[in-house]
Amino acid sequence: MKIVKGWAQLEPKGKLVPIEYELSPLNSEEVEVEIDNCGLCHTDLNALNGAFGLPYPIVAGHEITGKIVRIGEVAKTKGLSVGQTVGIGWNKESCGHCDPCLNGDPHLCTTLKATILTGHGGFASRIKAHWLWVIPIPEGIRAADAGPLFCAGITVFYPLLAYEAKPTDRIGVFGIGGLGHLAVQFARAWGSEVVAFSSSTDKQEEIVKLGADYVVTSRHTSAWEALKGKFDLIVITVGAALEWDKILELLSPKGRMHFVGIPFDAIPVNVLSVLIPQLHISASPGGSRWAIDKMLRFAARHKIAPIVEHFPMSRINEAIEHLESGKAKYRVVLDADF
Amino acid sequence: MKIVKGWAQLEPKGKLVPIEYELSPLNSEEVEVEIDNCGLCHTDLNALNGAFGLPYPIVAGHEITGKIVRIGEVAKTKGLSVGQTVGIGWNKESCGHCDPCLNGDPHLCTTLKATILTGHGGFASRIKAHWLWVIPIPEGIRAADAGPLFCAGITVFYPLLAYEAKPTDRIGVFGIGGLGHLAVQFARAWGSEVVAFSSSTDKQEEIVKLGADYVVTSRHTSAWEALKGKFDLIVITVGAALEWDKILELLSPKGRMHFVGIPFDAIPVNVLSVLIPQLHISASPGGSRWAIDKMLRFAARHKIAPIVEHFPMSRINEAIEHLESGKAKYRVVLDADF
Repeated sequence: MKIVKGWAQLEPKGKLVPIEYELSPLNSEEVEVEIDNCGLCHTDLNALNGAFGLPYPIVAGHEITGKIVRIGEVAKTKGLSVGQTVGIGWNKESCGHCDPCLNGDPHLCTTLKATILTGHGGFASRIKAHWLWVIPIPEGIRAADAGPLFCAGITVFYPLLAYEAKPTDRIGVFGIGGLGHLAVQFARAWGSEVVAFSSSTDKQEEIVKLGADYVVTSRHTSAWEALKGKFDLIVITVGAALEWDKILELLSPKGRMHFVGIPFDAIPVNVLSVLIPQLHISASPGGSRWAIDKMLRFAARHKIAPIVEHFPMSRINEAIEHLESGKAKYRVVLDADF
Repeated sequence: MKIVKGWAQLEPKGKLVPIEYELSPLNSEEVEVEIDNCGLCHTDLNALNGAFGLPYPIVAGHEITGKIVRIGEVAKTKGLSVGQTVGIGWNKESCGHCDPCLNGDPHLCTTLKATILTGHGGFASRIKAHWLWVIPIPEGIRAADAGPLFCAGITVFYPLLAYEAKPTDRIGVFGIGGLGHLAVQFARAWGSEVVAFSSSTDKQEEIVKLGADYVVTSRHTSAWEALKGKFDLIVITVGAALEWDKILELLSPKGRMHFVGIPFDAIPVNVLSVLIPQLHISASPGGSRWAIDKMLRFAARHKIAPIVEHFPMSRINEAIEHLESGKAKYRVVLDADF
């Protein structure tokens, strides 16, 4: 059994240190992957900051790309082979026989196992996962940068697909960071009009380059006056407390406010203001395997890629500091160098 | 010009008294209806209690049935004729050329005119409305009882149609009053499993007769334990403050909590609990003209009717007291006796 090397937190607020561990025996539905790169997501920081109450040592990381090194007997029959370049995202196992699984929604599996919540994650040399969540990376996608597509990417792509956004829609994206910079690219390629709401005014030019038709400050709602009732879909990618009533007013009749970021405090919803224009409020966690495949092919075809800064994994503590300080542009990817 | 007789409130909290007034000249798109019956809805009580700040005299009433007596030149070409039995509900005029109107959603018209908010309503001998909202009552519907279908009926039918409820769905209805007793009948005829959540335990037997598979108390959330994660759609027909977090927990993945009642206080929504099972929160105001036609034909085919108590319109003050005291079972209809 090969020893896995990883970067782990051993105690609350501790810096990450190298550790070694073994993977449990590969079962017939599992696939073992040698990790080349792993994105660094805010949810990893949350995990390291104690948000999920995980037991120590904690090895985070769930935007994984790498190569298949071993395959179980069943997994072998699912279009996978040793040497294949694959990605693994937020989920690593679903049951296959609950209601959502049977309905094509394994990301809503009632016994879903998330990559970093039920074992060691991707800040490591190897990992294994159920074959369904070991996803071949199609041609046209640069694997070394692709990790963030498997979490941030599918998270913002999914609402377009699942709620049937139209190329004729006007779509608003709140927050142009790791998630939002991909949301803007996807919505643009979708054919929709894209309005980016950003808190930083100095990013304006580069957000337009990403594909936004224009950029509006998210700080001053007075700037939104002319946009009232104009949006079919608004995607909230941030966890910050925003002026929710004012955002609802931006929606056209039958419009949707969709959360992929998770505000800490409950959102107060005035039902009358939702009822009169028949609005929708919804939220989604990543997307199904089918949706991830669609997203990857769409990204390849439209040359959509995360904008990433690479750090060698041995400088992971530095990378974390970089992300935490808000300096990352737009996503950090760690390159395994064990 | 024929004089209209109506029952009006002349001052805040005043009893209704008979008044007379004239209708403005009929324009080419309008239809004039002699009123036979008019339902009494909680929204009429709200109007009389000052909720909309209407100018006096206030003539409420928006669940109207009657016969066409005059038709404008354009309206004549829209399948309507003098003598036809018709209904008029919450809306009486839409513009026909705004975005929602062009998209088949005139109930979301940006310059929508509601029957009791922009003129005198149905507690009267006559009324006029735009032809679109003067709706022929099909065979198989008892016109004298049909008034409530044009507000309460479409309000609870619309979510089934618009959000594509399935006969295989489990549907919960909170509040089994004027709206809820129709929601139960429609959902039953839709083929779905229907669970009624009622605050009064003594109505259990009659709610099952209406079509509920079973009745659960809405008062004690401890009774809901076995129902967690089991509902595809929950329709809230009441304005009371309920335990919203607990209701969200009743939904299955991708489930929907839909409001047709309007709680006075804002609903606090915990985004994480919406995001993980990918839930929907929505609300709707009545329904489109197309949906009303579908609803009427569905009701006729399935022998769905409001359960009503009739009062002569001359006893309108007594009828209002009856509804306000919570004694109405389930809807009050006033019979014009001018």
